[in-house]
Amino acid sequence: MNIQPKRNSLTPETVTTGPLPGSRKVYHSPAGRPEIRVPFREITLTDPLEPPVRVYDASGPYTETDIGIDLSKGLPAVRDAWLSKREGLETYGGRAVKPEDNGLVGADKLVPPCPANRQPRRGRDSALVTQYEFARAGLITEEMIYVAHRENLARERMVDGAMERVADGESFGASIPAFVTPEFVRDEIARGRAIIPSNINHPELEPMIIGRNFLIKINANIGNSAVTSSVAEEVEKMVWSTRWGADTVMDLSTGRNIHNIRDWILRNSPVPIGTVPIYQALEKVDGDPLKLDWEVFKDTLIEQAEQGVDYFTIHAGVRLAYVPLTAKRVTGIVSRGGSIMARWCLAGHRESFLYEHFGDICDIMRKYDVSFSLGDGLRPGSGADANDRAQFAELETLGELTKVAWDKGCQVMIEGPGHVPMHKIKVNMEKQLKECHEAPFYTLGPLTTDIAPGYDHITSGIGAAMIGWFGCAMLCYVTPKEHLGLPDRDDVKEGVITYRIAAHAGDLAKGHPAAAIRDDAMSRARFSFRWEDQFNLGLDPDTAREYHDETLPKDAHKVAHFCSMCGPKFCSMKITQDLRVEAQALLDNEKAALEGMAEKSREFLETGGQLYVKSDRP
Amino acid sequence: MNIQPKRNSLTPETVTTGPLPGSRKVYHSPAGRPEIRVPFREITLTDPLEPPVRVYDASGPYTETDIGIDLSKGLPAVRDAWLSKREGLETYGGRAVKPEDNGLVGADKLVPPCPANRQPRRGRDSALVTQYEFARAGLITEEMIYVAHRENLARERMVDGAMERVADGESFGASIPAFVTPEFVRDEIARGRAIIPSNINHPELEPMIIGRNFLIKINANIGNSAVTSSVAEEVEKMVWSTRWGADTVMDLSTGRNIHNIRDWILRNSPVPIGTVPIYQALEKVDGDPLKLDWEVFKDTLIEQAEQGVDYFTIHAGVRLAYVPLTAKRVTGIVSRGGSIMARWCLAGHRESFLYEHFGDICDIMRKYDVSFSLGDGLRPGSGADANDRAQFAELETLGELTKVAWDKGCQVMIEGPGHVPMHKIKVNMEKQLKECHEAPFYTLGPLTTDIAPGYDHITSGIGAAMIGWFGCAMLCYVTPKEHLGLPDRDDVKEGVITYRIAAHAGDLAKGHPAAAIRDDAMSRARFSFRWEDQFNLGLDPDTAREYHDETLPKDAHKVAHFCSMCGPKFCSMKITQDLRVEAQALLDNEKAALEGMAEKSREFLETGGQLYVKSDRP
Repeated sequence: MNIQPKRNSLTPETVTTGPLPGSRKVYHSPAGRPEIRVPFREITLTDPLEPPVRVYDASGPYTETDIGIDLSKGLPAVRDAWLSKREGLETYGGRAVKPEDNGLVGADKLVPPCPANRQPRRGRDSALVTQYEFARAGLITEEMIYVAHRENLARERMVDGAMERVADGESFGASIPAFVTPEFVRDEIARGRAIIPSNINHPELEPMIIGRNFLIKINANIGNSAVTSSVAEEVEKMVWSTRWGADTVMDLSTGRNIHNIRDWILRNSPVPIGTVPIYQALEKVDGDPLKLDWEVFKDTLIEQAEQGVDYFTIHAGVRLAYVPLTAKRVTGIVSRGGSIMARWCLAGHRESFLYEHFGDICDIMRKYDVSFSLGDGLRPGSGADANDRAQFAELETLGELTKVAWDKGCQVMIEGPGHVPMHKIKVNMEKQLKECHEAPFYTLGPLTTDIAPGYDHITSGIGAAMIGWFGCAMLCYVTPKEHLGLPDRDDVKEGVITYRIAAHAGDLAKGHPAAAIRDDAMSRARFSFRWEDQFNLGLDPDTAREYHDETLPKDAHKVAHFCSMCGPKFCSMKITQDLRVEAQALLDNEKAALEGMAEKSREFLETGGQLYVKSDRP
Repeated sequence: MNIQPKRNSLTPETVTTGPLPGSRKVYHSPAGRPEIRVPFREITLTDPLEPPVRVYDASGPYTETDIGIDLSKGLPAVRDAWLSKREGLETYGGRAVKPEDNGLVGADKLVPPCPANRQPRRGRDSALVTQYEFARAGLITEEMIYVAHRENLARERMVDGAMERVADGESFGASIPAFVTPEFVRDEIARGRAIIPSNINHPELEPMIIGRNFLIKINANIGNSAVTSSVAEEVEKMVWSTRWGADTVMDLSTGRNIHNIRDWILRNSPVPIGTVPIYQALEKVDGDPLKLDWEVFKDTLIEQAEQGVDYFTIHAGVRLAYVPLTAKRVTGIVSRGGSIMARWCLAGHRESFLYEHFGDICDIMRKYDVSFSLGDGLRPGSGADANDRAQFAELETLGELTKVAWDKGCQVMIEGPGHVPMHKIKVNMEKQLKECHEAPFYTLGPLTTDIAPGYDHITSGIGAAMIGWFGCAMLCYVTPKEHLGLPDRDDVKEGVITYRIAAHAGDLAKGHPAAAIRDDAMSRARFSFRWEDQFNLGLDPDTAREYHDETLPKDAHKVAHFCSMCGPKFCSMKITQDLRVEAQALLDNEKAALEGMAEKSREFLETGGQLYVKSDRP
């Protein structure tokens, strides 16, 4: 039930709701914790001998059956009960919204604030506030229990056979457990190897974890721009991208109404929302980088932290001394935040205020448990610039800042490139792990070639799969419109599906114990010609069905023991099914022959193997 | 000028003609050989300081300007002059076409033979016929000179700077030269490390080379099926797929009229055509694998060799003893040819006639210089079955057969999987090189996960890029319709572009000396906002332009110094351009300061760098 959104409307029918084909939303609680309800999607198969396949589900309540969504009320605040018990938190009046927060938009064009807004919470100075602080103190939070259960796909034990098969993965030194426990989650967070982006002002969040030893995650970007886009589209984009599997969403909006639009997104988002606060700070100073200063940036951090943004991209690694390193690049600086800060530094020949105030930034972010996504402002914008001194100098600084942020109690991940040919990807991952003390890596692609505008979801999907395998914790998606225009809903879906492929290919290669379950179910469905199951087990059941029906539209073909590729006569799977019984018999027969049962063998030959066709062996 | 083909029509307007946007076809001859005219595509850029970018061009005369194509006359026979001088070749009457060659189609539905057909040539018994034989004899053929020039993209010398930058590629032991000479080509062919698929009865062919030390090639499959498709579509599919970059085309047709359709394809194909002769042989015995025998297969080989097919997939490695190894697989045997032969072997408990008659097959293929593509009939059909004993047992046999074929004077490449998770791809490549004595590897994908029907061009494009990098010489494309239905022209294009991306990403990573030229030209076009150049330098200019125009349709935006992603205010490239002059000045300034010129430094600081903005430095 994919409802097309109406433009410029905030009524509930603008968002897509309802389950995916063949699927239903299930909630499952860890043993003894009925109040922690973890969502999954269960794909029901047509073969009664095949158990339903339970898959990770980032889509929130929107994919429940017959859900009544009211955007003005926001999603249920699933974390509220947990947060309200935490003594380190307090509710306070909060910062007053200023006209410049919404880009000085006129009253006639002002998007109203979301009625679901609450008074903000903040952490007290000496209390435990962040997941990192709880973990370091040896305490397990509800969020940790939640993500452990979620990562296991609610397996209570290993699924038969799955473990053996995927245990041959190559994880390049990762420590992926057969089964994720809350204790393991806590340890990983305490070591800084994983984060649970979860602002205390985002109680609607269904917690998720980002780290090398967990399932690889993907991020989708949404946002208007100075040129186009509307409010309702942005809320739907978040819903739409999580429907197809985005684990987090970054709101990169600029321009008018961004404060209020962000309210609507946050109150209705089941996934962590990330932002780049420097964008809004720049808006507040009329778009002139030279007018930026610590005060306006600080004010923006607090504004967004109170709203509930879960992670901030902070380009504090763009130091004055590194800017000249980009002078001879083919594509200079391609990060917006990076170029803004470079301009600021260079114009006044000053060190970056983000770098100089980094401790202050930590103090603010800690209060709300906003996670750092340390931005790679000097990432390469072309294969030619990959792995150069500018990029790596900044990475080394991000490593230094990671330790500062940890000392201040903050959760940290590190952003990475960008544009990197295949042979230079691994060194990026290795250097990041080393320089940044194993803090989770979060890369954009990388694009493995620059010659395919219109297909950069693919040029980058290749690099994303590889760096995911090598240890990258989260992959920022790229849509087919990258470098060309703003993605529409089809592009967002294409980007998300491509990145789900990359993440899953990485999980398989790393040897994640649950990753192969879905592949194997698909392969069995293929081999036994269960077409409906093939569609529904896929990442995009609608498209799979549509493609199948273009050639073989009749319902009868959904149970046909062949497909349009080869037709009935040439179907290798059909032939194989026919000969499987014989082959097994031959195998048994050869074994028997080895055991000296020569008579049986002759009999087999004389009958042309027909003797064994009637065997009831599998 | 993309003309939509009319269905069921053989008139010339059914094929797509005309140059790609911003491009023109150029022919360039190696020094001293004006009769060898090698085609390239030259992309003209809008910046007069930017030289045109010359790219490899597999599309044949169809992309010339104002070309008059008449399918009934076929393409110019560019090799005819070379072949007619070869003493080892003779013209003869040829085999008479039999009704069963066209599937016993009734006269009313018979597709007429192509009027451009000629009398076939064949090699004499003791003469030099194949490229392998010439190479072993130390002789350089016109085809070798042609492909050497083609691989260099007609560079007479290294392009300035390009070599330094890409020399950091990791080639995993390949021997990629800075410049390809005809002698190098001959040596590679003589060592069996490369092939030029070039049947002496395909004089219309523009020769190309397949080998690890050359540019990575891609293959597109076309073909009708028992269920659907028409003649005219097949010819256009060949033209269409080469337009977007398919280096070879496999005609996998079955059913009626296949002999005559193949005629039309071959007479009009500038690229090597491959087939799987067992498909047609099976048609001739009413689709019953058990009725297959050496005689009908032999007859089919001669039939297709006389028509000019350039390479045959021969599943001679599916031996009786290996069939039981597939019994416990999740997806059994998924190769059509493999399943047909397995059925044949098992039913009679007989060794494969392809294996037993392998020497005879070589003798026939040598006479026409049909290259072997040794089929992987036991390739895995799911990640679960990857790298199992069945697959590798067959691969070992293919290595044994490679030596037999070489001894008989034939050119050989080896087919590979299929479905392989990322961590198992490299071992495939390494084992193939070892077992098959470095004969070129030609893989299908491989698909790195099974969970994305509708997106298997992407699941497999990831694997293809990786195995290409590791040493695979040719990548068989996969379209979005794989596992679901028959590809239409959009799917074919999507598959070809995806595989061009994979091949190019592999070339870049291997450090091919010319690979980065196009990427760098694109990056410069990006950085200087030359939108038209960005479109035209891309693999698919039409789609790139269309995507751009969806957001910014006005012509003025084609020269705008920003794009729709960030708008004018946030454009990082714009900001970077502004600060580049300053950054360079700062760099120079710091150097000067180090040299003791403290005065200049102070001056810089006092003016906030404005002093240097007027500098004429780049």
